[in-house]
Amino acid sequence: MGARDREGSDDVRALGEFGLITRLTAGRVWPQATLLGPGDDAAVLAAPDGRVVACTDILVEGVHFRLDWSSPQQVGRKAVAANLADVAAMGAVCTALVVGLGCPAQTPVSTVDDIAAGMWEEAGRVGSGIVGGDVVTAEQLLVSVTALGDLQGRAAVTRAGAQPGDVLALCGRLGWAAAGTAVLGRGFRSPVAVVGAHRVPEPPYEAGPQAALAGATSMIDTSDGLLADAGHLAEASGVGIDVHSGKLTVAQRLVEVASALGADPRHWVLTGGEDHALVATFPAEVALPDGWTAIGEVRRGNGIVVDGRPYEGPAGWDHFSS
Amino acid sequence: MGARDREGSDDVRALGEFGLITRLTAGRVWPQATLLGPGDDAAVLAAPDGRVVACTDILVEGVHFRLDWSSPQQVGRKAVAANLADVAAMGAVCTALVVGLGCPAQTPVSTVDDIAAGMWEEAGRVGSGIVGGDVVTAEQLLVSVTALGDLQGRAAVTRAGAQPGDVLALCGRLGWAAAGTAVLGRGFRSPVAVVGAHRVPEPPYEAGPQAALAGATSMIDTSDGLLADAGHLAEASGVGIDVHSGKLTVAQRLVEVASALGADPRHWVLTGGEDHALVATFPAEVALPDGWTAIGEVRRGNGIVVDGRPYEGPAGWDHFSS
Repeated sequence: MGARDREGSDDVRALGEFGLITRLTAGRVWPQATLLGPGDDAAVLAAPDGRVVACTDILVEGVHFRLDWSSPQQVGRKAVAANLADVAAMGAVCTALVVGLGCPAQTPVSTVDDIAAGMWEEAGRVGSGIVGGDVVTAEQLLVSVTALGDLQGRAAVTRAGAQPGDVLALCGRLGWAAAGTAVLGRGFRSPVAVVGAHRVPEPPYEAGPQAALAGATSMIDTSDGLLADAGHLAEASGVGIDVHSGKLTVAQRLVEVASALGADPRHWVLTGGEDHALVATFPAEVALPDGWTAIGEVRRGNGIVVDGRPYEGPAGWDHFSS
Repeated sequence: MGARDREGSDDVRALGEFGLITRLTAGRVWPQATLLGPGDDAAVLAAPDGRVVACTDILVEGVHFRLDWSSPQQVGRKAVAANLADVAAMGAVCTALVVGLGCPAQTPVSTVDDIAAGMWEEAGRVGSGIVGGDVVTAEQLLVSVTALGDLQGRAAVTRAGAQPGDVLALCGRLGWAAAGTAVLGRGFRSPVAVVGAHRVPEPPYEAGPQAALAGATSMIDTSDGLLADAGHLAEASGVGIDVHSGKLTVAQRLVEVASALGADPRHWVLTGGEDHALVATFPAEVALPDGWTAIGEVRRGNGIVVDGRPYEGPAGWDHFSS
């Protein structure tokens, strides 16, 4: 394919770097924190409380996403969502994003348009937007996202503050993205509800600052799965955590999908990543904010147990689930 | 090659993501602005004047660098340098960097170590460092860098403030990276001075805040070459710029290299990119700070001329250089 692909739409080579940037920035409304938006050597953002939260991720085609499983718009949303969830997990609100995009020269401009549209859509869910970026040629499609956030005067909620006696609590759903990945991996495209969870997570962004206000002692988002991420809290805090499996909802839809695939839905809930739910610890006397559910407790010691015992995967589940 | 390459050193697959991150963060001294460093969902940085400068770049192997031309350490330095120069061009000081690294699973850990060492070395030149990041698998080696900066209470120096009558001034060298690229492209590895300029630029970071303090009305760093980047100033400011070629130094070393390659060294100086020198405009009555040289003037109108005439490349040079 040349500078125009078979459908006649331009590819990014025809547009060039500056043309592409002009196209991607045209008509955007910059987020409120923007003091200087795209078009200069750097953007300038407000950091009202004198601090800024920063995190970054790279998503690579074939590693983090597949364009036969997800649309470019969904890829854009997911890349931004993962970073917004990280900002939320500090108890902060995302003020702005800077992004990088790498793609082959023959990539249709519509693909890039759709990725950008997805990024803006997801950023818009928290009133944020993209204030700067870079567009380069690469063999694989790839997206880098850096999110900046505002703690609004609050202390950051780190992974390190959990105390024995605290309640472990969850906001958001678990196991859905894993179920979707399993479905897609078996060549199916439905049910849409679980496939959609793989394509675009639905992190409860507002729940992060809400938990911070309520006095959360530690917080993380479930990128790697509940047990792995609760394990990060336990390790950073120097405590043990006991997950109470009976408190974890296993949605009927996950039960049905698991049944069809011969899988264990509770395993998805305990270990499935990429849902970007928020997991936090709260002092026992705190009333959990709306949307949060107690799912376990913090103990002296170290490591993660489920109902008091080490989790050994689906084969081991029956030891403690009855 | 398996998890250990033929020299017996580990590859990144053997170490794993968490092992790699532990290795890359071990023993580092975080920059002064660091309120919370690596190991959480996000870093937290001081933004003392309530604003933060942010910019990002992606560098991809085979596009932005070649490992047969540059060492991994040099790639790390160059990736950081380009961003530090962008921060300096706003008149700011870099407070912290977040970085992403993508590489094939069989990449030797030593390659990643060296890229990180180069990043830290260059960041250390301005007292900054890496406070967060992401490590992923990718087919090509790639590096994304996001730099955050502090304006120290000053207004940002944008591209848009140049006024007719202002002096166009330069700090840093021009044409050296282009000469180095030309030498490498012809299969040579010396002279080291010009090849080194391709491998690692030497932007005059301190000159950015210095120019801001002195009252610079606009500023940019030369990523794309003097004429292109001065063109960005002219366009953003709605003015014309006349570059006085007689004020531009053409180093004897560039003359020699150009002679050996049958090239025009003045063309490198006028159009060669990647030196990341700083170009700024100052009111005529301002005494230029140390290290800055007047190289032209700002006029009413638009576009860039050299000695009053459009620049037409090496062939056209003789029309106006005598």
